[in-house]
Amino acid sequence: MLDLSLPLGLRDLTPDHSAHLAELSGRLQEVFRAFGYRRVLLPTLERLEVVERGLSPAALAGVLKFVEPGSGEVVAIRPDITPQIVRLYAARPDALPDPARLCYDGPVLRAREVRAGRPREVYQAGVELLGAGGPSADAEALVVLRRALDRVGLSHAVLEVGHARFATAMLSAAGLPASARESAEEALSRKDEGALAALARRGRGAGREALPALATLYGEGALSRARKVARDVPAAVGALAELEAALKIARRRALGDVEVDLGEVRGLGYYSGVTFAGYAPGAGSAVASGGRYDGLLARFGRPGPAIGFAVDLEFATQALERRDGRAKRRSRAGRR
Amino acid sequence: MLDLSLPLGLRDLTPDHSAHLAELSGRLQEVFRAFGYRRVLLPTLERLEVVERGLSPAALAGVLKFVEPGSGEVVAIRPDITPQIVRLYAARPDALPDPARLCYDGPVLRAREVRAGRPREVYQAGVELLGAGGPSADAEALVVLRRALDRVGLSHAVLEVGHARFATAMLSAAGLPASARESAEEALSRKDEGALAALARRGRGAGREALPALATLYGEGALSRARKVARDVPAAVGALAELEAALKIARRRALGDVEVDLGEVRGLGYYSGVTFAGYAPGAGSAVASGGRYDGLLARFGRPGPAIGFAVDLEFATQALERRDGRAKRRSRAGRR
Repeated sequence: MLDLSLPLGLRDLTPDHSAHLAELSGRLQEVFRAFGYRRVLLPTLERLEVVERGLSPAALAGVLKFVEPGSGEVVAIRPDITPQIVRLYAARPDALPDPARLCYDGPVLRAREVRAGRPREVYQAGVELLGAGGPSADAEALVVLRRALDRVGLSHAVLEVGHARFATAMLSAAGLPASARESAEEALSRKDEGALAALARRGRGAGREALPALATLYGEGALSRARKVARDVPAAVGALAELEAALKIARRRALGDVEVDLGEVRGLGYYSGVTFAGYAPGAGSAVASGGRYDGLLARFGRPGPAIGFAVDLEFATQALERRDGRAKRRSRAGRR
Repeated sequence: MLDLSLPLGLRDLTPDHSAHLAELSGRLQEVFRAFGYRRVLLPTLERLEVVERGLSPAALAGVLKFVEPGSGEVVAIRPDITPQIVRLYAARPDALPDPARLCYDGPVLRAREVRAGRPREVYQAGVELLGAGGPSADAEALVVLRRALDRVGLSHAVLEVGHARFATAMLSAAGLPASARESAEEALSRKDEGALAALARRGRGAGREALPALATLYGEGALSRARKVARDVPAAVGALAELEAALKIARRRALGDVEVDLGEVRGLGYYSGVTFAGYAPGAGSAVASGGRYDGLLARFGRPGPAIGFAVDLEFATQALERRDGRAKRRSRAGRR
């Protein structure tokens, strides 16, 4: 008797679920196209050397890799589409305009997640703006995501913005010894003001006094509080200025409300500037996330700025199902 | 310096090319949906045991397989979506109606083709009708393909129909020794009437006289000629009757012209009944192909009839580009 099970962590998406994802994906592509982004289809496999450039060593451990018998090359099933697009941009300047506005849609294979029930194969749709830096490119990415969320029915999603270099610069300015630095990153990820205050005593830098406040730089007024906290740390002031400039332009383009969180320091991967994520009730995690990754292009031999984001089709579908479930309950209640 | 090349046989599809494929795929899905087919998203990987059920040993050699380190299982990158859908149908009767009308869209990874330039990763869109047998299901598959080709702009594509059991039954009735049987299959695939006449002399079956004529059973009048040639071979008569019954129903549903070829005997894979393919100028090979595969479901533990087809998005795009190139040349000529 044949065992009909799937490889560990993989799933079939049954018709209703698949239809929801396909519809969502089609609408996202419409928005991306309206903003001038052009779709590219990229291969399921990359040479491992290419995949390595876009991943931390820890993430690399979970990538599925094997030797391709015909060539003897080590290849990997793509864990992320952004580095593929960077490879394409670096390898084929002839085939693309500069700056290049590209979008994609497809599955990626991640390491099996520690949290139970998270599937290994994830469906994403996203955009990348390559060869364009500065606040107007940052603003464009934010606005495209906002319009995309609006278009698919997630206008209630909260857009959270931050900057990959802000908290890092503040931690560096505190002059902590290596072991305390790691504890501080950990405390910051928990927003543990008390632990940061205790660690600040071990700092030798001028910025150590500001350490506890890092845990509070989110929500209402976070930007003006951050300006005060960061005033003696030029790198942090610069990061804030980038974020504020991007928000100013994006607001002129009807970005709508955003929430600020400047305390993010972990899990930033290749991000180097403005970062952002969309959150909506019902989704297990962010429905979309992205940011500026100016360092990544140089690793592929064509230095330049770039920014992009990916929508997680599964989490976005969960959020839509929650919204529809509530709408149904409301309409049922109304009929009584 | 990083080598930016792709694994052997893989490609990026640049924006214009990707846009053509995506547009084509969107239109195909519209037709499939209009006929009641519901899309399913299936994983990139299957356990090797599952992939083996849908492939000949020769084809299996080219499949990319590796050990998944977490589970120790041997897994394979899917070379074909049809057996995945059969696995789903067998494993999840609770999740699907019966008969089930399912469609799909996605890449599959083939063995590197012997012919130069044929990519290894192939984009397909197709339908499967599972749990429905008989001429009306056969006719439905033919009509859905005809409408799909019309919808995407390939109404000039020729639909060629045949039957997986006809030539096989005729060859068996010739009673050839094993070595001659193989030569006869080879001669038949070349439509070499002379070689078949020579091989017929080695036959011991009543059907040996009919052997040379098998090479001529295509084109105008092929069905009536086949009826005469097959009259003493009940299995071949049965196959013909199935094909004619399907065509009769499909014609009432405005199938349009078809071409018959009853000499196919190789490369049939899991097909067991009516087979068909679409051909259009400019495409390197068939733009679509399919057939009945009643034997495959039993191999997955849920015996039943099934039929389906896949459109090769790449070949279909080639055919459309040829058509558009001609149209452009015509309109340029007209302007002079």
